[in-house]
Amino acid sequence: MNGIVVRNIHRADAVSLDALERLGVATVHEAQGRTGLMRPDMRPVWRGARVCGSAVTALIHPGDNWMIHVAVEMVKPGDVLVVACSGDNLDGAFGELLAVSLKARGAKAVALEVGCRDVREIAELRFPVWSRAISARGTVKASLGSVNVPVVCAGVRVVPGDAILADDDGVAVVPRADAARVAQAGAEREKKEAASRARLAAGALGLDLYGMRRALAEKGLEYVDGPLDWGPHTSRGN
Amino acid sequence: MNGIVVRNIHRADAVSLDALERLGVATVHEAQGRTGLMRPDMRPVWRGARVCGSAVTALIHPGDNWMIHVAVEMVKPGDVLVVACSGDNLDGAFGELLAVSLKARGAKAVALEVGCRDVREIAELRFPVWSRAISARGTVKASLGSVNVPVVCAGVRVVPGDAILADDDGVAVVPRADAARVAQAGAEREKKEAASRARLAAGALGLDLYGMRRALAEKGLEYVDGPLDWGPHTSRGN
Amino acid sequence: MNGIVVRNIHRADAVSLDALERLGVATVHEAQGRTGLMRPDMRPVWRGARVCGSAVTALIHPGDNWMIHVAVEMVKPGDVLVVACSGDNLDGAFGELLAVSLKARGAKAVALEVGCRDVREIAELRFPVWSRAISARGTVKASLGSVNVPVVCAGVRVVPGDAILADDDGVAVVPRADAARVAQAGAEREKKEAASRARLAAGALGLDLYGMRRALAEKGLEYVDGPLDWGPHTSRGN
Amino acid sequence: MNGIVVRNIHRADAVSLDALERLGVATVHEAQGRTGLMRPDMRPVWRGARVCGSAVTALIHPGDNWMIHVAVEMVKPGDVLVVACSGDNLDGAFGELLAVSLKARGAKAVALEVGCRDVREIAELRFPVWSRAISARGTVKASLGSVNVPVVCAGVRVVPGDAILADDDGVAVVPRADAARVAQAGAEREKKEAASRARLAAGALGLDLYGMRRALAEKGLEYVDGPLDWGPHTSRGN
Amino acid sequence: MNGIVVRNIHRADAVSLDALERLGVATVHEAQGRTGLMRPDMRPVWRGARVCGSAVTALIHPGDNWMIHVAVEMVKPGDVLVVACSGDNLDGAFGELLAVSLKARGAKAVALEVGCRDVREIAELRFPVWSRAISARGTVKASLGSVNVPVVCAGVRVVPGDAILADDDGVAVVPRADAARVAQAGAEREKKEAASRARLAAGALGLDLYGMRRALAEKGLEYVDGPLDWGPHTSRGN
Amino acid sequence: MNGIVVRNIHRADAVSLDALERLGVATVHEAQGRTGLMRPDMRPVWRGARVCGSAVTALIHPGDNWMIHVAVEMVKPGDVLVVACSGDNLDGAFGELLAVSLKARGAKAVALEVGCRDVREIAELRFPVWSRAISARGTVKASLGSVNVPVVCAGVRVVPGDAILADDDGVAVVPRADAARVAQAGAEREKKEAASRARLAAGALGLDLYGMRRALAEKGLEYVDGPLDWGPHTSRGN
Repeated sequence: MNGIVVRNIHRADAVSLDALERLGVATVHEAQGRTGLMRPDMRPVWRGARVCGSAVTALIHPGDNWMIHVAVEMVKPGDVLVVACSGDNLDGAFGELLAVSLKARGAKAVALEVGCRDVREIAELRFPVWSRAISARGTVKASLGSVNVPVVCAGVRVVPGDAILADDDGVAVVPRADAARVAQAGAEREKKEAASRARLAAGALGLDLYGMRRALAEKGLEYVDGPLDWGPHTSRGN
Repeated sequence: MNGIVVRNIHRADAVSLDALERLGVATVHEAQGRTGLMRPDMRPVWRGARVCGSAVTALIHPGDNWMIHVAVEMVKPGDVLVVACSGDNLDGAFGELLAVSLKARGAKAVALEVGCRDVREIAELRFPVWSRAISARGTVKASLGSVNVPVVCAGVRVVPGDAILADDDGVAVVPRADAARVAQAGAEREKKEAASRARLAAGALGLDLYGMRRALAEKGLEYVDGPLDWGPHTSRGN
Repeated sequence: MNGIVVRNIHRADAVSLDALERLGVATVHEAQGRTGLMRPDMRPVWRGARVCGSAVTALIHPGDNWMIHVAVEMVKPGDVLVVACSGDNLDGAFGELLAVSLKARGAKAVALEVGCRDVREIAELRFPVWSRAISARGTVKASLGSVNVPVVCAGVRVVPGDAILADDDGVAVVPRADAARVAQAGAEREKKEAASRARLAAGALGLDLYGMRRALAEKGLEYVDGPLDWGPHTSRGN
Repeated sequence: MNGIVVRNIHRADAVSLDALERLGVATVHEAQGRTGLMRPDMRPVWRGARVCGSAVTALIHPGDNWMIHVAVEMVKPGDVLVVACSGDNLDGAFGELLAVSLKARGAKAVALEVGCRDVREIAELRFPVWSRAISARGTVKASLGSVNVPVVCAGVRVVPGDAILADDDGVAVVPRADAARVAQAGAEREKKEAASRARLAAGALGLDLYGMRRALAEKGLEYVDGPLDWGPHTSRGN
Repeated sequence: MNGIVVRNIHRADAVSLDALERLGVATVHEAQGRTGLMRPDMRPVWRGARVCGSAVTALIHPGDNWMIHVAVEMVKPGDVLVVACSGDNLDGAFGELLAVSLKARGAKAVALEVGCRDVREIAELRFPVWSRAISARGTVKASLGSVNVPVVCAGVRVVPGDAILADDDGVAVVPRADAARVAQAGAEREKKEAASRARLAAGALGLDLYGMRRALAEKGLEYVDGPLDWGPHTSRGN
Repeated sequence: MNGIVVRNIHRADAVSLDALERLGVATVHEAQGRTGLMRPDMRPVWRGARVCGSAVTALIHPGDNWMIHVAVEMVKPGDVLVVACSGDNLDGAFGELLAVSLKARGAKAVALEVGCRDVREIAELRFPVWSRAISARGTVKASLGSVNVPVVCAGVRVVPGDAILADDDGVAVVPRADAARVAQAGAEREKKEAASRARLAAGALGLDLYGMRRALAEKGLEYVDGPLDWGPHTSRGN
């Protein structure tokens, strides 16, 4: 099955990648209309990193990491390797040696729909990895998958060359063709948020700042003077 | 549906809140008869905080954080905002700007039955948040819920004004009417535990300290001299 | 039911335990043929520890930690207590006082198929605990289980005296009879990996280092010159 | 802990219970403003039943079904027994003998936040049970809980005497004081749905029937003539 | 966000759809190289149906089924409606009235990445539905999504017009361009399987039928004469 | 790794197997001290079967069913094949052709720690299968495992030749050496239950039948005359 490696891919432009990286996952996810976010079980193996790079994709099979080795050769400096799996599996398909190898070849990070192991060593290397689990369970090298074909990873389609942005909030995918536009929209959003932040920090209410009171009233929100009596409530039940 | 905001609530007394905060979740949960503990997937977004305050409650709907904005206005200094959701959802209904706003208004913490985003920024603010997930997925502002009505959050009923205690062990709810009594019971429990701790640290056995040997014997516990032979056991199987 | 405590057990030899501890979970799991790894939800309560010791086993029941107290007496310096549960349960059967007691008696660590509480205090003690959850929910002392009988913990059979190795990657079990052999195989594996690590860090490809190209070609892996056109792909969908 | 049995409870009126039973869970849940529905893992042990009765509540502990036996005595003909558990547990706390006993005493059904066993025998008895799991794992009789106190079961607060409605869609709780009003609202809703059903069966569109087109247009919904070209899409990826 | 409806789509050819329907999910999934299978929590609401049709897609948001109503108008006789959700949610976005409406307009089935309600009525209608959960929880009509754009549903990308095949084994997606080829490959596979079935039913071994013995031996499979002694093994442990 | 097939095994005696089969899983699980029950996600692919036979074991790897083919040859009439997996995986490692083959060779059933496919065909064959999931996802034949070695399957150790009993309540393992004793204990338990059943069906209370009242009173159970007032409780909250 599968068994194809695409040697060259279009990559997202460096300016957009830099801009997206500055913005972070939450802002970018909003800026592209709340799309492109991988499932929330994609968690960083160590906290504090924020990276954005072009996707090199690998499609592997449960308990088999052969195609990750094939994918390493396709990585260029600045890329993020995205590893999708044809079935649901949390085995540790990625470990220290692959991290060393990817780092040596300039990869910025890895996003794994499976598990990761050697997490202490990987944290010491400061090589950023997002995965669905930490598991030492090893994998075999027996089945062909593909490299640099479109994949679905943690619920999101990734086309080779898409921008992959990841931080402590998760992993987001920005289609290559949208990268510049989304970066622009994100920057505008951030500017607005900076203004809001200052006013909220000074004690302003979001209700006023965002002008929500009228819409809430029209929907029928009703304010009641309390306190109300909710009856006896003690730790008798659960 | 819903659509009610209760303006004033009874709050737990400050002395009890302080006492509960010093005791911590595990002790308080025991002191009130092992009730009031939220499900264990309520985890701190960053570790190390311990807070206790009166509950301001918000009931939201899946993918919609409108009522959190409404709830912020109802928060008084020292309160803990408790956000329950009418359905099962992990979207990131709470982020940095809401944290800034709540902090500015004196809230001590937030407990979310849904997801949280901007976790790096929230950790830098040192604003304590407990949630069921970290997710950047954004939410809409379309459906009315309620504020300061009784809710069920992560398996526990919370009445506005109940004491909410949270630390690295999770989130516990103490009914307002029970706060003083539970704080007292907790203090006694802690005193006993301090004495036990010293003796255990010196090598005493819990079996003797707690006088368990007799009850175990009566139940029929049998001591057998070993070592026994459990047969060949090697890494052949799984 | 059950209700047996075996007083003496064979223990793994200290030299093998030391050797295994130096190698770590991922290496040892591989070295014994990818067996013996507990399920990946066995996570450290605090990160950074690596321990290996002989297993003292306890079999408890849901919501009941009585037999942990019985097991403490059976622990000898250097042992690791393994707590299996007859049913699926995440209650906090282990907390600070048990940690203090075990530490005083020389135990190196605990691996719990259930939940752990007092995690801040346990982290401050630097006593290593692996568990399936953090939960403050307390337990009763009502049902007999057994101590130092073979158990299945997190998917793996543990015979008393087996070597238990745990670190940030999880928890592995090495049958006592295999400890020396596995430690030896692990050391050889590590030596090989050290050589590979140096070459990979210098930019070598795993494809060449491990001689994979021929097998991949025989399986039919096909390289295609790109870039390919994957059609319009924007943030319109999800 | 706990340890209280309340002997007499207010019950919902028979007319409302009958009316709610005719309506079913989905209609009633809507009719009371989308509240009161237990989590969707509350599933019928056998399909096809629909029952509504007043709640007799029992609060049990993980792995312990003692209080179910106590609760049986409190059941009156037409009641539904609701069993909540203080911790997360799926053990089979309910089986054939309890079903026989409850049936003999006139109970209409049981809703269990834990597991059920003897499911073939229970299906043959035609005694309706909703539970979170099917599990043969037995339980002990060691810890006191309570009977006929308010509980939280599968995410919903149940006060003794509330109306419990259950069918193939799940389990809903209607507060006793609301039963008549909700039954009335449900009947109106059902009448409207009957009219809609006929028109939809004849080919009418919900868009027209519910007058949605204008609101959709105002929100900005855009119709585009297709077909559009979405690029090469074959079974190469996953 | 989103907010686009594509009016016309290319559909898979009727001959291929018929051929795929005869083959079933397991055979087709294999025939296209083990790709295109949705996650296994996509289960039939009632068992026994097998359908194949062209996909009309809808992208909805958590707790909001508005776009399903929009999608109904786009359905042509023989189509299968595929409903993807932008976030993780199991609310009952689909019920009896939508089933009546879709059936009236000729739809063959629905595949839902969310929940379904009114399951008894839907079973009586004999309208086939696959969903991730049964839940009576209602949804709002507040947020725009899209119709007939590519979506990811339960882990698989679906382009409008793709062949959707579903039966008791799950839901599979065959890209429109591949439908004829996959149907052909599936028919060949089925022919082979029919021959194997007959020989296996007569007692032949797969080891011989598929010629596996040599490959197993080359891999090093070792046959040992038993019985072996695995030591004392009684129901003492767990 | 692994790679061993044991040709002959001790089997449980036919009389005990028959006796256990008549008793069923719930009774037998109790009769051996509440041990030996597999996790409750081991569910029958079709309902209504009850089987008991000697275990032939297979240890496979994620996404790989090669060793099931090897195991078929080892099966004797009346055996139950138990398939454990070295990692967590739900792929459909077992389907119709394997069912046909096993049935032809006299196997009574299969218990799978992974997924099953072709469930309609298997139901039509009336071949009983218990599995953790229904999934059409295919598997490869690439990695050696073992046959007829001890395995851990769904949380329980299975030694080749153990009695495997399965019905609608789940799957239980009885160590071969215990089969006669457990069958005897189960028969006694059943006799007692028959007596209790008659009395309970006549309206007797378990409290009296099992003599629980005194123990409950000693524990401090308190009866309170109601009805109590639990305060306003309407469908305002969730």
